[in-house]
Amino acid sequence: MTDDSEAPRLVEVGALSRALEDFARERDWTQFHSPKNLAMALTGEVGELVEIFQWMSAEESADAGLDPRTAQAVRDELADVLVYLVRLADRLGVDLDAAVRDKMKRNALRYPADQVRGSSSKRNAQRS
Amino acid sequence: MTDDSEAPRLVEVGALSRALEDFARERDWTQFHSPKNLAMALTGEVGELVEIFQWMSAEESADAGLDPRTAQAVRDELADVLVYLVRLADRLGVDLDAAVRDKMKRNALRYPADQVRGSSSKRNAQRS
Amino acid sequence: MTDDSEAPRLVEVGALSRALEDFARERDWTQFHSPKNLAMALTGEVGELVEIFQWMSAEESADAGLDPRTAQAVRDELADVLVYLVRLADRLGVDLDAAVRDKMKRNALRYPADQVRGSSSKRNAQRS
Amino acid sequence: MTDDSEAPRLVEVGALSRALEDFARERDWTQFHSPKNLAMALTGEVGELVEIFQWMSAEESADAGLDPRTAQAVRDELADVLVYLVRLADRLGVDLDAAVRDKMKRNALRYPADQVRGSSSKRNAQRS
Repeated sequence: MTDDSEAPRLVEVGALSRALEDFARERDWTQFHSPKNLAMALTGEVGELVEIFQWMSAEESADAGLDPRTAQAVRDELADVLVYLVRLADRLGVDLDAAVRDKMKRNALRYPADQVRGSSSKRNAQRS
Repeated sequence: MTDDSEAPRLVEVGALSRALEDFARERDWTQFHSPKNLAMALTGEVGELVEIFQWMSAEESADAGLDPRTAQAVRDELADVLVYLVRLADRLGVDLDAAVRDKMKRNALRYPADQVRGSSSKRNAQRS
Repeated sequence: MTDDSEAPRLVEVGALSRALEDFARERDWTQFHSPKNLAMALTGEVGELVEIFQWMSAEESADAGLDPRTAQAVRDELADVLVYLVRLADRLGVDLDAAVRDKMKRNALRYPADQVRGSSSKRNAQRS
Repeated sequence: MTDDSEAPRLVEVGALSRALEDFARERDWTQFHSPKNLAMALTGEVGELVEIFQWMSAEESADAGLDPRTAQAVRDELADVLVYLVRLADRLGVDLDAAVRDKMKRNALRYPADQVRGSSSKRNAQRS
């Protein structure tokens, strides 16, 4: 954890966090929103997202956001994953913007552009 | 898809999207960033996040963001999931803010607070 | 659930089930092996398996079981997934052989060979 | 990889493997069954399995295999995961029985019963 308080913000999710808190409280669902349960819910949504792409080639998947047969499902499943991710971070007390700025800084050190450029290196290199 | 252009924004991820695009381009990694591949990378990161909580009780998981044994891992894995989610949305041409506002609006209609309040209803109800 | 007791067995996992039960009991780990926890552990292992293939093309993935750079990891992660799947079924009291025979019978009815043959149909059809 | 050819078999999945090969060939689906695609399909099924347990307590999950509200779903999703796991192993040329015997042997060395017994050790120890 480094002091990167001066760096520009990369994401802002506070309004969604608050909307999800209100949504849960109005339904008395906070009792179910332990990090453990939310991590499972996130898994389920990622599973639904992955199912969209499972039989596509990599090339076909590039058009899935525009193709009328898949565009709405893509959009919905991405939203569901984001919802549970932001809710989970909130329940864990994690500042996603600070976490991601920190991670990006370390990734830049870990994968120097001139050493990992192109295909083969990437395969083995990009492990976060 | 509804016209919700007047509603207040819930998330802002544009700066992270651009940072990830630069990061990939500088390393010539864009060739690997098909939605299909990125959805798989997202799966891997969610798997790492879930592993943190797998043997915890729901109660223990509530403290995982503060517990010094898990706090950094929690932060890092949340960041990794966010990174791949934002990158995936960008490659698919999906506006995450619009997608999530749309989804929240439909969730509010689908789960009326006075009908789903409390435990049992939730179990069966909250399927997105 | 149909009576398919006459059909030939498709899998036999009893010996692994018993070995896993002994392994857990000797370590006093049974207390952690709720279906909920085991489903999360399964997720984590699937995440590790998926990571092997994430940056490969479909063609490259076909050789991953033989390629010396990935063969051992492939073998290990498949074993890990099997271990948690069999343990989970055992803790839930599910007979995997009966469950899979039942499912295969329904899949045969659901996807008649002469109607779903070839590519496009499959995309939409093979949802279990 | 050790020579454990003398050890008793733990699983037998050959009949399911052959049934899945026939099923795919009759439908001309082998073209879609790259390890990469099958790993994604496996992810999707695990996601569906996890969804069953996500809002349950660990205690509630213990009964999910018998509870009439969840028993059939549990059985079906376990079967789906097994189907894709066995198909994936077959396409990768991996002998699941040998892989799992090998893994169990290493796990026994890695987690000596008298050193990891009980709760806290397990948390950190059981990583495969």
